[in-house]
Amino acid sequence: MPLTADARGVFPIAPTPFFEDGRVDTASLDRLADFYLAIGATGITVLGQLGEAPKLGHDEGVQIARRMVVRAAALPVVVGVSAPGFAAMRALTQEVMAAGAAGVMIAPPNTLRTDDQIVGYYRQAVEAIGADVPFVVQDYPLTFQVQMTPDVIRRIVTELPTCVMLKHEDWPGLEKISTLRGFERDGSMRRIAILCGNGGLFLDYEMERGADGANTGYAFPDMLCDVVRLSIAGQREQAHDLFDAHLPLLRYEQQPGVGLAVRKYVMTRRGILATDAQRKPAAALSAAARAEVDHLLERLAHRDPRAALR
Amino acid sequence: MPLTADARGVFPIAPTPFFEDGRVDTASLDRLADFYLAIGATGITVLGQLGEAPKLGHDEGVQIARRMVVRAAALPVVVGVSAPGFAAMRALTQEVMAAGAAGVMIAPPNTLRTDDQIVGYYRQAVEAIGADVPFVVQDYPLTFQVQMTPDVIRRIVTELPTCVMLKHEDWPGLEKISTLRGFERDGSMRRIAILCGNGGLFLDYEMERGADGANTGYAFPDMLCDVVRLSIAGQREQAHDLFDAHLPLLRYEQQPGVGLAVRKYVMTRRGILATDAQRKPAAALSAAARAEVDHLLERLAHRDPRAALR
Amino acid sequence: MPLTADARGVFPIAPTPFFEDGRVDTASLDRLADFYLAIGATGITVLGQLGEAPKLGHDEGVQIARRMVVRAAALPVVVGVSAPGFAAMRALTQEVMAAGAAGVMIAPPNTLRTDDQIVGYYRQAVEAIGADVPFVVQDYPLTFQVQMTPDVIRRIVTELPTCVMLKHEDWPGLEKISTLRGFERDGSMRRIAILCGNGGLFLDYEMERGADGANTGYAFPDMLCDVVRLSIAGQREQAHDLFDAHLPLLRYEQQPGVGLAVRKYVMTRRGILATDAQRKPAAALSAAARAEVDHLLERLAHRDPRAALR
Amino acid sequence: MPLTADARGVFPIAPTPFFEDGRVDTASLDRLADFYLAIGATGITVLGQLGEAPKLGHDEGVQIARRMVVRAAALPVVVGVSAPGFAAMRALTQEVMAAGAAGVMIAPPNTLRTDDQIVGYYRQAVEAIGADVPFVVQDYPLTFQVQMTPDVIRRIVTELPTCVMLKHEDWPGLEKISTLRGFERDGSMRRIAILCGNGGLFLDYEMERGADGANTGYAFPDMLCDVVRLSIAGQREQAHDLFDAHLPLLRYEQQPGVGLAVRKYVMTRRGILATDAQRKPAAALSAAARAEVDHLLERLAHRDPRAALR
Repeated sequence: MPLTADARGVFPIAPTPFFEDGRVDTASLDRLADFYLAIGATGITVLGQLGEAPKLGHDEGVQIARRMVVRAAALPVVVGVSAPGFAAMRALTQEVMAAGAAGVMIAPPNTLRTDDQIVGYYRQAVEAIGADVPFVVQDYPLTFQVQMTPDVIRRIVTELPTCVMLKHEDWPGLEKISTLRGFERDGSMRRIAILCGNGGLFLDYEMERGADGANTGYAFPDMLCDVVRLSIAGQREQAHDLFDAHLPLLRYEQQPGVGLAVRKYVMTRRGILATDAQRKPAAALSAAARAEVDHLLERLAHRDPRAALR
Repeated sequence: MPLTADARGVFPIAPTPFFEDGRVDTASLDRLADFYLAIGATGITVLGQLGEAPKLGHDEGVQIARRMVVRAAALPVVVGVSAPGFAAMRALTQEVMAAGAAGVMIAPPNTLRTDDQIVGYYRQAVEAIGADVPFVVQDYPLTFQVQMTPDVIRRIVTELPTCVMLKHEDWPGLEKISTLRGFERDGSMRRIAILCGNGGLFLDYEMERGADGANTGYAFPDMLCDVVRLSIAGQREQAHDLFDAHLPLLRYEQQPGVGLAVRKYVMTRRGILATDAQRKPAAALSAAARAEVDHLLERLAHRDPRAALR
Repeated sequence: MPLTADARGVFPIAPTPFFEDGRVDTASLDRLADFYLAIGATGITVLGQLGEAPKLGHDEGVQIARRMVVRAAALPVVVGVSAPGFAAMRALTQEVMAAGAAGVMIAPPNTLRTDDQIVGYYRQAVEAIGADVPFVVQDYPLTFQVQMTPDVIRRIVTELPTCVMLKHEDWPGLEKISTLRGFERDGSMRRIAILCGNGGLFLDYEMERGADGANTGYAFPDMLCDVVRLSIAGQREQAHDLFDAHLPLLRYEQQPGVGLAVRKYVMTRRGILATDAQRKPAAALSAAARAEVDHLLERLAHRDPRAALR
Repeated sequence: MPLTADARGVFPIAPTPFFEDGRVDTASLDRLADFYLAIGATGITVLGQLGEAPKLGHDEGVQIARRMVVRAAALPVVVGVSAPGFAAMRALTQEVMAAGAAGVMIAPPNTLRTDDQIVGYYRQAVEAIGADVPFVVQDYPLTFQVQMTPDVIRRIVTELPTCVMLKHEDWPGLEKISTLRGFERDGSMRRIAILCGNGGLFLDYEMERGADGANTGYAFPDMLCDVVRLSIAGQREQAHDLFDAHLPLLRYEQQPGVGLAVRKYVMTRRGILATDAQRKPAAALSAAARAEVDHLLERLAHRDPRAALR
């Protein structure tokens, strides 16, 4: 079931569950898979930045991907394979594709500056992973400090047929979606799936600009699924109402550095993860911050009763 | 009426109103002053980054400051004097202080990296502006790429008695407020005013962490005044309710680059500015973006009727 | 005498001479002009980064440019007009062109990231300064953190007829010169002058790649003139011998931050500047560093007797 | 033979030899070891940045370190263990120390900004690798964009007894050496070894400022050994004469990005490496660049006959 440009809906970015001693918690990983299936996710992405991929060994990464592929067999699983060298990227890609992954996600290294460097990097990446592996371009300037213009994305899409999806998380990024969809309409670029990241901070309007869904790790992916569904169904104000109810927490989770701690804490409170442990180096939540998240959860439960913790 | 460490409440960051041809629109500037007085602002900051200060000539800057000082005579006016060289900083400071400004605001140049460089820069800045001029430290890493730890701020406050306020806009920044207030409690730092910027994105919890108010340019500074008042009065949930009602628009305005265009557009729709013109180089709003802001304003009017446009 | 794409030879970047109290030292400025004329410079650039332009007021900048134009009447004078806003850039350009400058130099602001942003910036700059003013593109990624590919430079040159010169100081940058000259040969770009900066660190091979000369501020511009002449005359090994004799000092001067202090110190020892004062903020030379420069000068005098101090 | 603060002389940074197909070339690795022993190196560093460490798998890295430890048994071998996560850093450290390495080298991740973050990072790193493993702090702001003040280094040295060496490659960096040696003299910091990197570009004066030697990968490490020896022996002018003879090539090799290609090409021409292959992504030398290096080698042979290629 290879990933195609028809992908849509919500591909949650799965956090990697750890025990306090740093080992991978496979039981929580299984619970995550079951949860994503239950809420109507249409795919899953593992080993992303906020899946703490750079802190995992090669074998650990493969095992996490394999376990998710087996457990969530009904869904396409995309695996982050970004690496400083192409040898490691190729090795990881081959193993996870052999294990049944639907495709891979590649972020640009933060040394790239010019348009040509970016296009050249993806060209070399495809040489490394093979011209038969569908891949997702991750466009996240806030973290990677690499700016991809719509034109650069069009060049990548045009030159590399296995580019099937954009993980869109530029900030601001609404115009970029409009421009890319315009390229498709004027025939200068084939259609690709655009799923939005950046914590979901603009998902409400991104859907209206032409996005196909979300590809992010907000601790209530069930809300993301509902907003995407409502938006596609044309129930605009309902989509915004639901989104706005979550925005205070979502905004809190979207803080650089500390955001993953918030996300894991909420998912622990929701009973999905056993602990909110991260591998070092990691930012932790202070007692004050935990109290703030608790407060946000309480207020959220009033505005979105389905988000109430049991 | 020099600025002191007792400052609190809301010091809006005033945008600089322009005509379409780039000239300064003094009638709109006067309306801004009157508006800030009417809503209960406790001070005003002019010539900040989002006041397009780097695009103003020296004389223009002085005239804007002078006009605001005269028109809003009841309020302390802080003037941004950041400049690549200390000669220009001193010249501007001397003129605006002579004209009746309450103090100046100084941002660090983006070349500073180490703690010592930052402290050293402010030491030299005080030599330049004079040891009798109250000043505000602007801590905005997202824009200036200068990271100030709480310890660096304590060193600046301790060494330089005329440092009376922190324009706090680190992101994430809640722990920084707690740490600084902790320094005050343990006696290792004298008290300074902490007013929060960063578009107000975390003002709700910043107040609870010990901030004294806001120092930002959100297009509804009346909401900022109300949230600060409610928070100080201990009406916690009411403060959050009001804040949350504005968060969808506030988040939209807080986009890098395009945010000022949103702000000026809203203030034009509110009838405060005559036009939303910016000096070049500037980012403009697309038709789609304007429609989104209009939509946000409509939705806001339902949740905060006082924010309804006339 | 407008600047044209036929410019070649050496346009020294003039330091701005100051007295210890920070005032501009016009007598030293005159000596600089006379010195540049005497050594065979073919042009002069004032108000560059290392001319401490950002620390000068508008009127000071105009006066410096005007004085240089008058004193060095036989040479084209290029004036750096980089500014955060286009209003200031236009005002400075109009005054210095009226005073007889040959053209202006424009560096990109460090916020530009994508190819389109860079081209768009120069398009707007030309709107600001006027389509009749010859200009130099400054390509200095080490300082400005803006990466211009050869393709971007070609787009600028093609779209903007008044772009007549590239101040080339990318590092590494040799291939860029070859590529640009290749564009000229294959007819895809009109010829422009390429003069090299970056302290002259690669001038030896830059000339062989097709550069037209130097546009930098090394404290022995007489050597730059000689190397350019020897290289153009095909006296390859003599050019390298002379260049290599200076390389130990040149490398020492090419240190970020402290380089201007070295340059001014040497020019003071050479009797060209009255003092090595800089405006604040500025890096100073330690006693140890001064002794090292003295040592480098002694060793240089043995290898290039014409570089011996009187 | 654990690394101690008494280390001095030259620890070349070993490139990792590859075949054209990307496999590690162990025969060339052995030749490198023999070569370093023959020229009088006092130690060897493997798996540095310019050893292409980020492109190696864990097992490959261990095997390279182990082979070097065995082959160059008379010399202490330092192993670069920088990694995005501490788990990988610990795993690599344990294996290479068990294999007989003398210590490890740790570079700061480029996300660190403040003094406290840097000190905190090394504190956590020591927790990860164990308090019994000697380590080298790599201070290379040009590549890592992390600025360590002398005070930060003093804090690391004071707090962490297993910090025994600084790989000094700040630029400019001469004053930093003087300041650190001053800390030792005034008793505020224990003595550590300071070996200089940055391609050796300032080794001549770094030795005079108090450095203990070099820790860099210039293609003629024999020259580095000689310069260090001459400098320690007080033969100042001879040290400079030899250094200056190599400076034109050394400067050419010290170009960001393309420098490793120059280094491997020269070492291939010297018969030490079988090929100049790098793993992708990598910058390659153009034909023009190879001709320039050939020219530099010819000129060098005239000034330092011992550098003549056979």
